[in-house]
Amino acid sequence: MSNSELEVARAAARRMWADDRASRKMGLELGEVAPGQASVRLTVEPRMLNGHGVCHGGLIFALADTAFAFACNSLNARSIAMHCSISFIEKVKAGRRLTAHAEARAQYGRNGIFDVAVKDDEGVIVAEFRGYSRTIGGAWVE
Amino acid sequence: MSNSELEVARAAARRMWADDRASRKMGLELGEVAPGQASVRLTVEPRMLNGHGVCHGGLIFALADTAFAFACNSLNARSIAMHCSISFIEKVKAGRRLTAHAEARAQYGRNGIFDVAVKDDEGVIVAEFRGYSRTIGGAWVE
Amino acid sequence: MSNSELEVARAAARRMWADDRASRKMGLELGEVAPGQASVRLTVEPRMLNGHGVCHGGLIFALADTAFAFACNSLNARSIAMHCSISFIEKVKAGRRLTAHAEARAQYGRNGIFDVAVKDDEGVIVAEFRGYSRTIGGAWVE
Amino acid sequence: MSNSELEVARAAARRMWADDRASRKMGLELGEVAPGQASVRLTVEPRMLNGHGVCHGGLIFALADTAFAFACNSLNARSIAMHCSISFIEKVKAGRRLTAHAEARAQYGRNGIFDVAVKDDEGVIVAEFRGYSRTIGGAWVE
Repeated sequence: MSNSELEVARAAARRMWADDRASRKMGLELGEVAPGQASVRLTVEPRMLNGHGVCHGGLIFALADTAFAFACNSLNARSIAMHCSISFIEKVKAGRRLTAHAEARAQYGRNGIFDVAVKDDEGVIVAEFRGYSRTIGGAWVE
Repeated sequence: MSNSELEVARAAARRMWADDRASRKMGLELGEVAPGQASVRLTVEPRMLNGHGVCHGGLIFALADTAFAFACNSLNARSIAMHCSISFIEKVKAGRRLTAHAEARAQYGRNGIFDVAVKDDEGVIVAEFRGYSRTIGGAWVE
Repeated sequence: MSNSELEVARAAARRMWADDRASRKMGLELGEVAPGQASVRLTVEPRMLNGHGVCHGGLIFALADTAFAFACNSLNARSIAMHCSISFIEKVKAGRRLTAHAEARAQYGRNGIFDVAVKDDEGVIVAEFRGYSRTIGGAWVE
Repeated sequence: MSNSELEVARAAARRMWADDRASRKMGLELGEVAPGQASVRLTVEPRMLNGHGVCHGGLIFALADTAFAFACNSLNARSIAMHCSISFIEKVKAGRRLTAHAEARAQYGRNGIFDVAVKDDEGVIVAEFRGYSRTIGGAWVE
């Protein structure tokens, strides 16, 4: 990847993130973004626990989905999620810090397949996510 | 379904909901619960929008996943989500009110498959979700 | 549904089936087709068993996928499978007769979501399948 | 991986393959097997085409599913497929030779997640598959 591809990926991410009130409100933090990949972090707080006393699956999904969204938009073609699947591997209690790392698995036509692993700080996998994206026309950065 | 099955489903739901800080914090409202089914609602607010200016997919997932969780726990056997998939059908702007309705599709051994349709107040489908659950032992209500 | 929609669905199915050497070779039999739905049957023979001594998952998938293909093409818009998922619920031994019944769950733009239940003659579910289709332009019948 | 792990993986594969009439009948050829991974090949013949004149999706699934089955059984714990998803990326005409390569993505408790890429001889991806396995007790090789 060239320097300019990396700069475009980061600029697209800054623009998306600036307007992404939902991700910030849910406590997500944007990490590194590069062409075809992105990382997002979440530290699990008591307000994120469900009726089983563990992190709500919706938040773990949101973490993975956001990494996916930044990865699939990193090539500067506006893209949306069409379909996603997630496997919950380990329960997550409050205090644990999670990182979702998304990377492109396949790209064809307007379609992309991205894999996202959600791990804690020890590298233990807590969820595996696969997202299917589609470009919708338009760019993030000129 | 007998009256008592309905009462047990509702009592299990009340107990789960009481401890579910995450769902309340995300703005979800618990609707009707019956054996094998549950409804959850969300009114999309500006704080729920992502960088595309539409409702964050993580929140739509959380809405569907929560309906799934209450449906799969409604038979009083503690159950967790193993795997979920979601298709995003229509973008959702602020002000729209969504309802996720979950119902059992198949149950076998400790496994369950539940379908969740997410619709707006006009009945337009905005997402389709399928969740795979597994019982983990224990009951919600004696 | 009108009589003519039903006739078109059946005519499209006859045309597809005539060229579908693979389905016939695998032992599939086309059942009823109507707008948005289709049934396909398979009687499990010893030549269809895998290394566990039960019906190969690929054949159960092929059965469900074929019902899906006929259902999503029944509206006379040529359509292909983009993505499919299947859950294997029960092992199937030789001699059992299976029927896959597909029906439309949601249709939006060029996309369709179809659910397929695979059951034996007693109505026992052996697999659940969900298929995502996309129209590709063109019709089966003028 | 040790030599003996590799030998066990191959011995388990030989045993599974010996009884797998369905895979042979469908034209599949077993390739390399190692701990946590396996390859299976298929040369697409005219008898494998569907009503669109391209390889039946059920056969492409069977190819990927078989690679998955040999990969998840390669650690000598008898395992079955619980759930699988596949994305069809490119149509495949007769004469093309496909290879499905499966490898473990995550393993936890009795569960495994395996990714399978199906490529032609030029390395072009025609399908991406993800399989979820579960051990059922018992070994292939003593």
